[in-house]
Amino acid sequence: MERKSYYDKIYKTINNLMEGEVMRGFLSDNNSGTHPKILKAIEECNIDHELPYGEDIYTEKAIEKIREIFGKNVDVYFVTTGTAANVVGLSGLIRPFDGVICADTAHINVDECGAFERFSGSKLLYVPNRDGKLYIEDIEKFLHSIGDEHQVQPRVISITQCTEVGTVYTIDEIKRLADFAHENNLYLHVDGARIANAIVSLNTNFRELITDTGVDLLSFGGTKNGMMIGEAIISFNPEISKNFKFIRKQGMQLVSKMRFISSQFIAYLEDDLWKKNAINANEMAKYLEEKLKEIKGVDLCRNVEANILFINIPLEWLEPLEKIYPLYEEYGQIRLVTSFDTNREDVDKFINTIKKISSK
Amino acid sequence: MERKSYYDKIYKTINNLMEGEVMRGFLSDNNSGTHPKILKAIEECNIDHELPYGEDIYTEKAIEKIREIFGKNVDVYFVTTGTAANVVGLSGLIRPFDGVICADTAHINVDECGAFERFSGSKLLYVPNRDGKLYIEDIEKFLHSIGDEHQVQPRVISITQCTEVGTVYTIDEIKRLADFAHENNLYLHVDGARIANAIVSLNTNFRELITDTGVDLLSFGGTKNGMMIGEAIISFNPEISKNFKFIRKQGMQLVSKMRFISSQFIAYLEDDLWKKNAINANEMAKYLEEKLKEIKGVDLCRNVEANILFINIPLEWLEPLEKIYPLYEEYGQIRLVTSFDTNREDVDKFINTIKKISSK
Amino acid sequence: MERKSYYDKIYKTINNLMEGEVMRGFLSDNNSGTHPKILKAIEECNIDHELPYGEDIYTEKAIEKIREIFGKNVDVYFVTTGTAANVVGLSGLIRPFDGVICADTAHINVDECGAFERFSGSKLLYVPNRDGKLYIEDIEKFLHSIGDEHQVQPRVISITQCTEVGTVYTIDEIKRLADFAHENNLYLHVDGARIANAIVSLNTNFRELITDTGVDLLSFGGTKNGMMIGEAIISFNPEISKNFKFIRKQGMQLVSKMRFISSQFIAYLEDDLWKKNAINANEMAKYLEEKLKEIKGVDLCRNVEANILFINIPLEWLEPLEKIYPLYEEYGQIRLVTSFDTNREDVDKFINTIKKISSK
Amino acid sequence: MERKSYYDKIYKTINNLMEGEVMRGFLSDNNSGTHPKILKAIEECNIDHELPYGEDIYTEKAIEKIREIFGKNVDVYFVTTGTAANVVGLSGLIRPFDGVICADTAHINVDECGAFERFSGSKLLYVPNRDGKLYIEDIEKFLHSIGDEHQVQPRVISITQCTEVGTVYTIDEIKRLADFAHENNLYLHVDGARIANAIVSLNTNFRELITDTGVDLLSFGGTKNGMMIGEAIISFNPEISKNFKFIRKQGMQLVSKMRFISSQFIAYLEDDLWKKNAINANEMAKYLEEKLKEIKGVDLCRNVEANILFINIPLEWLEPLEKIYPLYEEYGQIRLVTSFDTNREDVDKFINTIKKISSK
Repeated sequence: MERKSYYDKIYKTINNLMEGEVMRGFLSDNNSGTHPKILKAIEECNIDHELPYGEDIYTEKAIEKIREIFGKNVDVYFVTTGTAANVVGLSGLIRPFDGVICADTAHINVDECGAFERFSGSKLLYVPNRDGKLYIEDIEKFLHSIGDEHQVQPRVISITQCTEVGTVYTIDEIKRLADFAHENNLYLHVDGARIANAIVSLNTNFRELITDTGVDLLSFGGTKNGMMIGEAIISFNPEISKNFKFIRKQGMQLVSKMRFISSQFIAYLEDDLWKKNAINANEMAKYLEEKLKEIKGVDLCRNVEANILFINIPLEWLEPLEKIYPLYEEYGQIRLVTSFDTNREDVDKFINTIKKISSK
Repeated sequence: MERKSYYDKIYKTINNLMEGEVMRGFLSDNNSGTHPKILKAIEECNIDHELPYGEDIYTEKAIEKIREIFGKNVDVYFVTTGTAANVVGLSGLIRPFDGVICADTAHINVDECGAFERFSGSKLLYVPNRDGKLYIEDIEKFLHSIGDEHQVQPRVISITQCTEVGTVYTIDEIKRLADFAHENNLYLHVDGARIANAIVSLNTNFRELITDTGVDLLSFGGTKNGMMIGEAIISFNPEISKNFKFIRKQGMQLVSKMRFISSQFIAYLEDDLWKKNAINANEMAKYLEEKLKEIKGVDLCRNVEANILFINIPLEWLEPLEKIYPLYEEYGQIRLVTSFDTNREDVDKFINTIKKISSK
Repeated sequence: MERKSYYDKIYKTINNLMEGEVMRGFLSDNNSGTHPKILKAIEECNIDHELPYGEDIYTEKAIEKIREIFGKNVDVYFVTTGTAANVVGLSGLIRPFDGVICADTAHINVDECGAFERFSGSKLLYVPNRDGKLYIEDIEKFLHSIGDEHQVQPRVISITQCTEVGTVYTIDEIKRLADFAHENNLYLHVDGARIANAIVSLNTNFRELITDTGVDLLSFGGTKNGMMIGEAIISFNPEISKNFKFIRKQGMQLVSKMRFISSQFIAYLEDDLWKKNAINANEMAKYLEEKLKEIKGVDLCRNVEANILFINIPLEWLEPLEKIYPLYEEYGQIRLVTSFDTNREDVDKFINTIKKISSK
Repeated sequence: MERKSYYDKIYKTINNLMEGEVMRGFLSDNNSGTHPKILKAIEECNIDHELPYGEDIYTEKAIEKIREIFGKNVDVYFVTTGTAANVVGLSGLIRPFDGVICADTAHINVDECGAFERFSGSKLLYVPNRDGKLYIEDIEKFLHSIGDEHQVQPRVISITQCTEVGTVYTIDEIKRLADFAHENNLYLHVDGARIANAIVSLNTNFRELITDTGVDLLSFGGTKNGMMIGEAIISFNPEISKNFKFIRKQGMQLVSKMRFISSQFIAYLEDDLWKKNAINANEMAKYLEEKLKEIKGVDLCRNVEANILFINIPLEWLEPLEKIYPLYEEYGQIRLVTSFDTNREDVDKFINTIKKISSK
């Protein structure tokens, strides 16, 4: 009755691996493992007893670090998945008759199995995206329903930075969205599962892109950029997040041995590890783009801005390519994602594989 | 902070009414009162004691009536609002990770304040409508997510007959949707708030349009066509509705003195009252259309199929017209709805008012 | 697999009725029909068109009436069932991590099929009742969890007046609960499905018992005391209810032809109809009590305070009695409820039936 | 307005620690860190890329391990918290009108901030515990509501093994509960946050205690017994869990780099690490009990069965003791929990501290 998920096909690819051969590809940045410095931090906090549920000194220190970077007044809640960061955070901003406006491509809309709707009981007001982005013109129509009890009340604008298709909002675009939000009594939420890649892409910093533009709530992603398990909900207005501790607990996200999440964040933010990781991922995406451009038959859907590429290839290449590389297809396009640990050899190997297939 | 609902403006119109003058217009078919025969049925069942919660003889008889019309095996649950019929019924078909595919214009999507999401915890998968309708091509894309835990599982197709913009699905269109649904392990739900108007428009009957096409669930509207308070959820497969009694109660819709709802349905279905009411509404819509066509400057958005019209008028007419008639505007268009009690005089008076305004 | 509901047994009783014989008993006060004055009010408002969704003049007038009685500042929302009044109202006071403290016998806890939990996503913190009532000592233990994210936060105290077992809180008891609530940042909600019977029992009035004691929210019942379909949510603090209109709509309770609910309330409150009805019910309960006391073998569980009695009878009387009268048993006791239309003949007939059975 | 959580007081204790002094106490078994073998397993799986979301070989192997222990047919889902294991698993067994019967002391009832109610929309039917346990007599009363739409339908019995007060159900007690459940069309769920301690206490094994008694669903705890972050939902009937993958994702619990959870379970189950850890904890609890018995003024609330003790001490000892040891008080009793890494020195130090206080 049920179709198999796309992982079934991918899994078969993996089984084709030769003994001892490792799988390295471009399926997603969460295929990578944990950065050694992160792992080391985990080991180093494994000393004796600590208070549970985030009352430990590592959590205190990690929050301090985040405040240094984002501003003194931010309120921080660690959780275990990106879906949890989005859903727990957004749920904290709304009442069940409020809605969250987002692009139809938003991760929260299409990749979280309705977690938002189930947990919040609220509605996502999704509109057609433009290159993965949401624009003020798309949001304005929802303002008509304010005060009308027959309609869900718009309350939050949620954008993804960088977007699910790899594009990056400029600082100015985010500022305009934040201003528009606040003028209309809305909040601006940023799903920052790949926020580090966006920062590097724009050659900016967290404060300039997020704090100073007026973002109200950030899902601060770590896992996709070298952490093991860990995301943070960052609120830029403690008033709006004063009850988040209850919502995180209700969201089944209050990890008891929290220090093993917090210590990861400490390492992630120290010595700009987050930045180094993102720089590598973005550079490898650029390098991959260059190489792909050289192959006749490969069509790049748009210019690389961060660490995600979408390409079109001739249909007949697909099967042989998928035998070697697990691939994520969406709407006929192939998505390629580079990671903190992607290296030139990985790219070259992939390029050579395509070239070989193309020349058959 | 909050904008006023559109009713505030309308309310002012009403206050302009002269002493003794009654308000009769085209704002919606729920502005009408109760048909005298319905009221009489309510009075006549007001005899002594009866078992509560639908265990009374009137409810038994009303269900019998519905079975005569729709088929012996249908399962029937009375509720008090159209929103309840949609939400309680649909919630009964799905688990929280299942989704309901509908047009973006669907009442359940835009006019029920997120009641579906709140009560079911599930997601509406809405797509751009085409003249108020949903087509198979729009639904197919959701089939890709079947079995993939990252995505909401498509489970129900929900259409409105007649649609929110006044168009009517043909019997064949409904049959094709039902067949497609069943081939893909989905259910077909029909929001029939104005189903009587559709039946009359197509010159068909309930069995041909609903039972025989394979509809699984119908929100059978009564209030908009002359009843006082009352809608029915009709399930065409008792297996899918075996737990609906619990869901109705949870949905706060189990009226204790149920006979006062049921008796309305008895009268509504006797002597084809439903049909006579809908014939009048549809005829008056046609008459209104004819008359509007004669006025230069009035633009009909589409041909009248049932009892709803959308028109465009010059912007400068709006204000004077709204002083006399409460109007429902949507996307710059004016919606006009005729009712079981609309008469030629009502239409003529409205037409004359517009003519007078247009000639200024 | 499933056991039949207790109504199945009752229904069989009804079927034993002789042709032409009407069913009049003591199963519940919602077995009665609609008071003629209420029906007349419904008929009289059935004039031409009116604005839907409560924007009509009848709703305006009904709210005015309620304000005359309860105080100028109360906020009023009409709904269709007692469950809806409780659930919509309480949901409006809480966030999903907040809890409502109630007695284990509370209607909202045991007779509403989990509607509260489903709609609000929150928890009922129920404690063992004492004669149907809740006492401050039972509530205090929940105060320990305030601020602790591991526990549901107490937010509302909900009591039923008169209680499900027929007892009546004194004015002083309600005042003490309200004071305690407010001292601890809680709200006090009263489920007043039978509030009229309590008012009459205490020989007081709505303002003294409800407004002046400091109740924050009242489910103001009408249906059980002679109305057809209609309950009101009355908020004594407009600040707490400012979003109730959205919650009522989400709760599927915004009736389009609202005038047919509102007009009932106008009649109900005019000329003290509510009081006359409750006086009759309470008097008949007293009369029933007197008569029952005369029968050897009948054991009254407690003194009659309003219109509900619980009795114990010898087990062998049960079957013959249930053949004639539908009965509601709870924990081995039989509940008897009198109504606005119960008369001495009804009581005498019931008493004679028991006497006849007892003498066999 | 809000009272501080009990952690505030505890936190102050910690701040009293001397430089370099580590905190080791009996607050909870989640104060311990990660067992070195678990940490090693995490490190060893950190090799290159792996498929995300549990499609990796470590997850495959971990599930295999669990099947070796519990039975070939079990269905396994890893999550990050004990609350998630309970809530995701239980939600998968019920529809929103179904209820879960549990003891009032159940973790799911009092320590999870209403996560169950919020996520499932369902009701916990809690009854007074007897020494932390639930008995058939307490459950039977709920069977009356089966089929009655006014009441939540009992569907699952949930017990905690070992219980929140440290008692342990015998194999026979669990079997009787399972049989009773199945005879009445209910499921039996075991919250096994400390299941390893119960196994050791009963000198049995997982198969005998869980699989063979007929348990339907187990929350298989790891974190409290030496793991870092990780719990498993184990279903003993794949039919009931066939949709759990969707529910886990909706529950925000589908960790992308799943291998770092799975690898912990591999190490936990290899070489009986789980057992060695639990043996130590239980032995240390016994040793602590012995020593406490020697102190006049210390009152043990019940005999130690696993790794939890409750004691009463003279009120005047509390303050000085809390200055040195963070303590968890409940209803005036002090809870002491031993852990996989508790040693005799820890116990001796604690005992000496109390002795010193008692002799003042």
